[in-house]
Amino acid sequence: VTRKHLRDGTAQAIVVVSGIANDCTGEQGTQDAIEMAARSAEALGLQQRDVLVAATGVIGVFLPMDRVSWGIARAAKDLSRTGGGVAARAIMTTDTKPKSASAVVRLGSQAVRLWGMAKGSGMIHPQLATMLGFVLTDAAVCPKTLKEALRRAVRTTFNRITVDGDMSPSDTVMLLANGAAGNRRVGSLESPSGKAFAKGLEKVCASLAQQIAADGEGATRLVRIRVSGAVDEPEAERIARGIATSCLVKTAIAGGDPNWGRIVSSVGQYARKMDPESAEVFLGPIKVYARRVPAEFDPRKAEEVMAKSEVDIHVRFRDGKADVTYLTCDLTYDYVRINSEYHT
Amino acid sequence: VTRKHLRDGTAQAIVVVSGIANDCTGEQGTQDAIEMAARSAEALGLQQRDVLVAATGVIGVFLPMDRVSWGIARAAKDLSRTGGGVAARAIMTTDTKPKSASAVVRLGSQAVRLWGMAKGSGMIHPQLATMLGFVLTDAAVCPKTLKEALRRAVRTTFNRITVDGDMSPSDTVMLLANGAAGNRRVGSLESPSGKAFAKGLEKVCASLAQQIAADGEGATRLVRIRVSGAVDEPEAERIARGIATSCLVKTAIAGGDPNWGRIVSSVGQYARKMDPESAEVFLGPIKVYARRVPAEFDPRKAEEVMAKSEVDIHVRFRDGKADVTYLTCDLTYDYVRINSEYHT
Repeated sequence: VTRKHLRDGTAQAIVVVSGIANDCTGEQGTQDAIEMAARSAEALGLQQRDVLVAATGVIGVFLPMDRVSWGIARAAKDLSRTGGGVAARAIMTTDTKPKSASAVVRLGSQAVRLWGMAKGSGMIHPQLATMLGFVLTDAAVCPKTLKEALRRAVRTTFNRITVDGDMSPSDTVMLLANGAAGNRRVGSLESPSGKAFAKGLEKVCASLAQQIAADGEGATRLVRIRVSGAVDEPEAERIARGIATSCLVKTAIAGGDPNWGRIVSSVGQYARKMDPESAEVFLGPIKVYARRVPAEFDPRKAEEVMAKSEVDIHVRFRDGKADVTYLTCDLTYDYVRINSEYHT
Repeated sequence: VTRKHLRDGTAQAIVVVSGIANDCTGEQGTQDAIEMAARSAEALGLQQRDVLVAATGVIGVFLPMDRVSWGIARAAKDLSRTGGGVAARAIMTTDTKPKSASAVVRLGSQAVRLWGMAKGSGMIHPQLATMLGFVLTDAAVCPKTLKEALRRAVRTTFNRITVDGDMSPSDTVMLLANGAAGNRRVGSLESPSGKAFAKGLEKVCASLAQQIAADGEGATRLVRIRVSGAVDEPEAERIARGIATSCLVKTAIAGGDPNWGRIVSSVGQYARKMDPESAEVFLGPIKVYARRVPAEFDPRKAEEVMAKSEVDIHVRFRDGKADVTYLTCDLTYDYVRINSEYHT
């Protein structure tokens, strides 16, 4: 429904339901999504095709349309310029914190603003995840350019986080620009104003993506995995994602254990073009593995690094220039508790 | 070292060390493996090149060669026709149970025996895993045929189990045949005796593989995932492996929750050639999802199915004839405990 409404490249409102994903619900689910758009358009005095629809929550359950309709009427009445924080809280599911981010960017003499919010905690993996992300800006940007800017920003932000390796059917990132800032319309991403806008957008998306990884279900630590010196970006990304998805690496981090053997083993699982044993591995600033043999290091210092709320793992090759950073979190008892006690 | 010793296709002994994987140990590690073979050959009166070496345990730690040498001398003295059970116990690491299996196969008028043992519990994923498997037979089989028989058996058994999606550097399956049964040497797998031998071998490997999946770290349930009616075997295998690797599916099973939404979502993540929503999903005998919409079922009966010690998930397509079964286990608190409390 959203894709259809976006065919002309314009939209004026987004209606989001949280708690039910409206997936695997067949024709009824499609009808319900259309009705959500229709009710919202009616309440806001818009065209139905200018309303976008998103949903997140349990799969295979039909929407209670009477409650949804009541909610739409209520939300339309409560529309406010300062309602962003309330909206960011309203879209949460198993999130423990609302997630928002903003940036101000100068385009020539004109300042434009970006603001975004997101939800996501479990079922998080690239392409995309049980994640909803909405970014709004008052910049004037050509629709095609806006789409390309979002595509690029998503590639290095929302598509480089994982919580549990599980994808989702209801992944959505939307970007709306209304031009209220009155800037000269951004036509190309290669122009100075295009580059500045893209940079601001990437900053907002990167912040939201990091907030999602840090708030992963049961997470106690944010984990930043960097693979550098790789032959190409797909190779670097595959290795970084592999480490970020490894249950063994993530349980070791939960236990604060500088278990570099599991990291090197994971590199070996995902490296296709490079020799995994030729890497160096760093935990924070400490080198723990040095090309084929263990490095000598003070285990207490390594344990200190692992005990922090943010852990940096760096796998350094010398085969090329590709450099990719992936974000994830540790795998704890609480992830298992949240996902095994949750009942359909 | 083992590959080098196997170049002529023959071997007479296997020496296994448990507790240290002898991986990421560089040149010293290679020298230690050679010395293990040399000491074993000496103790048994064999050629060094007829001894195969295997190791399992922690990565990046050097072998204590004085203790290993002492162990080799001791094991050589204790060699016994009835020592299989002791050996199966000796190779365990985080396994809670020793694993062995046997089969008797008639090749024409002659009965031959197969016996195998394996270890493996965590870091289990195809191609292969932190898994050691050893199968012995008194059948006379041409070395090339033996190798091909093992390759085929591994493909549908050891390579269709996963515990945590993590591969390992020290995965090994070995098959030794001594010809003591006096049968006419098996020359081709397409002959009646070749087929019979292959069937017996697959049975032994399948039993060992199932024992590994059932004894996965922290596991309370064996999970059998069948994908049928698929367009081809790689597609069926990718989907089955995807479901078997999903943290969300596996935590739902730990919680006894008939959460078919997570299964369909996982199918959607891994299906490339088929429409994921066109599948039917069964939990045991109960249809829970029927082509695009939830099936009507009694939730109490579904919960009964999920509460058993073996859970069957069947994803049925109607696109082709490929039919693949994958084995895994649930993901519990104890998996996290074992792997986060384990310290290097």
